[in-house]
Amino acid sequence: MLPSGVVYLDGNSLGPLAVGVAERLRHTVAEEWGTVLGPAWGSCGWMEAPERVGDRIAPLIGARPGEVLVADTTSIALAKLVGAALAARPERRVVLSSEDNFPSDLFAIAGAARLAGAELRVVERSGLAGALDGEVALLCLTHVDFRTGELHDVRAMTAAAHAAGSLVLFDLCHSAGAVPVGLEEHGVDLAVGCTYKYLNGGPGSPSFLYVRRELQDVLENPLPGWLGHREPFGFELSFEPAHGIGRFRTSTPPVVALAALDAALDAFEGVTIEQVRAKSSALGQLFIEVVEDAGVDGLEVASPVDPERRGSHVALRHPRSEEIVAGAAAQGVVGDFRAPDLARFGLSPLYLSFEEVYAAAEVVVATARALAA
Amino acid sequence: MLPSGVVYLDGNSLGPLAVGVAERLRHTVAEEWGTVLGPAWGSCGWMEAPERVGDRIAPLIGARPGEVLVADTTSIALAKLVGAALAARPERRVVLSSEDNFPSDLFAIAGAARLAGAELRVVERSGLAGALDGEVALLCLTHVDFRTGELHDVRAMTAAAHAAGSLVLFDLCHSAGAVPVGLEEHGVDLAVGCTYKYLNGGPGSPSFLYVRRELQDVLENPLPGWLGHREPFGFELSFEPAHGIGRFRTSTPPVVALAALDAALDAFEGVTIEQVRAKSSALGQLFIEVVEDAGVDGLEVASPVDPERRGSHVALRHPRSEEIVAGAAAQGVVGDFRAPDLARFGLSPLYLSFEEVYAAAEVVVATARALAA
Repeated sequence: MLPSGVVYLDGNSLGPLAVGVAERLRHTVAEEWGTVLGPAWGSCGWMEAPERVGDRIAPLIGARPGEVLVADTTSIALAKLVGAALAARPERRVVLSSEDNFPSDLFAIAGAARLAGAELRVVERSGLAGALDGEVALLCLTHVDFRTGELHDVRAMTAAAHAAGSLVLFDLCHSAGAVPVGLEEHGVDLAVGCTYKYLNGGPGSPSFLYVRRELQDVLENPLPGWLGHREPFGFELSFEPAHGIGRFRTSTPPVVALAALDAALDAFEGVTIEQVRAKSSALGQLFIEVVEDAGVDGLEVASPVDPERRGSHVALRHPRSEEIVAGAAAQGVVGDFRAPDLARFGLSPLYLSFEEVYAAAEVVVATARALAA
Repeated sequence: MLPSGVVYLDGNSLGPLAVGVAERLRHTVAEEWGTVLGPAWGSCGWMEAPERVGDRIAPLIGARPGEVLVADTTSIALAKLVGAALAARPERRVVLSSEDNFPSDLFAIAGAARLAGAELRVVERSGLAGALDGEVALLCLTHVDFRTGELHDVRAMTAAAHAAGSLVLFDLCHSAGAVPVGLEEHGVDLAVGCTYKYLNGGPGSPSFLYVRRELQDVLENPLPGWLGHREPFGFELSFEPAHGIGRFRTSTPPVVALAALDAALDAFEGVTIEQVRAKSSALGQLFIEVVEDAGVDGLEVASPVDPERRGSHVALRHPRSEEIVAGAAAQGVVGDFRAPDLARFGLSPLYLSFEEVYAAAEVVVATARALAA
């Protein structure tokens, strides 16, 4: 549903409105809430939506049914899973992460660690393997670097964490819907992610969390609430956690937002995440080639040029990146700026053609060249 | 926007769809998200919505501007504020509550207390004042009992807590939009509440939290995230909390749900909460009178009959309450059942007339009488 004249390369920040979402919202609001009212909790599938929509996300990240729950926000999901992991490893009091992780993840992890009497240890990306010692309860990484798009090797980092006796958690905010993750294949323990980037769930749509099936009844939700209870409507005073992923629920599901996300996920029907990835990589290569061929002074590719090491956006570095982003936007090419000097361009393959990306790269290059002149 | 033929007495569980909400959602989705896309975060007021909508709720609960934030869910809001209070009172390790509190609140409070190395102490309602000893860091109560509608005396309980050196927190789920609270007047420290009952925000709409202005820069959010940072887009590695209520933000605001809530709050324009309360009390008295006058065997009023001691719903007790609720619903009178034996009827004055409530009470009485016969 993109406006005409716009090449939208900001889907790594906020995915656009998909066909069917507005109608689904209208239906949920007018026909369910407005007509069925309170009883809709039982008759319209509202209560099951967190697991049902989670099961639709599962194949996009290589998880199995019953392993993904949609609820809360990414930082709250992190607080839950970091807390759960630390409680399960009481003899280890360190959560390890890299200094190039998304700052909010570091804040959320540090907060959860503090509550558990543990600490966050932050090292350079290259020092992660060496820092995995016997104190580390959990390795927490973001799969795709939000600045450069550089990927962590999920297989290698998971294996290294497990070899050191640590659990591992990946933030998939910039992966879900764009980059295969292979959670089950690689034996990843825990994951979180947002749904408003490549999954197109809408501004502030709820996050998801993943707990490997084998861990679900071992871990406890440190932020409990009635909807994670085995019998929420029994109103017992003692907390008996639900079996399975449902124990990581806390409170009432955000029904309207879940409906929007559910409808947005229809766009992934009939395509595999590997097909999405293949086109995403090719779009990235095209964009990078145009920039590199142009050879504009001061404009460099900040992302890995090897598509195997890059997520679904390309970051360019330039001292006047903010002006480049503004100048390109004025010509209909929407990217975004990340301080101090990065211009980011998301290459979401579900709605971008090679022609559009080629033309957009030319606009970016011309804008940068005009600044330099 | 109620369906014809329905008297909706379940607004204490899920408020109905208000005029203007569907159109506002359409606008937010199609004209903002769908058209402005990512830049709408800056240009459409999305980022400020948690405080802006909070300021609209503030007068309904007796708070001042800048004291209310809309975010997360009630249980997560509780976890934040209980954690913050315990961190501010390190020499006291007890959170006191009553055993008739909403079980989810007890789960959330106990979880937050456990993380802080503290404990939840639960006593009978009548024993609260006596249990306020020097170990209590925080008294946590729900203003309106979700079963019977019985009110706690906010002024008296706040004074008692403060006299004992404790902070006080009220859950306003069944108060906001129906019963005046007087947070500022009574010096209440903290509060949380949902927005999908009398505020009509929609299924799973976000919760609000209140922190008294004088405490905002003293307390810390134990579940931090980037949007509670002083400079969220500076992407610094160290966490510097924002000044004011904004530090209790964690993650991205739920824009679509906030838009629905914002539109629903239009219904409160031009009426004071005292006017709402006066009609609510009168509706409750009418409902109770019909039930008491009927004198059906086994059907008793479980709520306080004194309107000063009762919130905005009336609960009836009957061994076959579930059948009474189902039978009344079949005749267009929608209430709800709470195990084991309560039928609840919410009297939301913004959309219920005296005629409707009178007729509904007659239906409930006749249904109960038919069961007994």
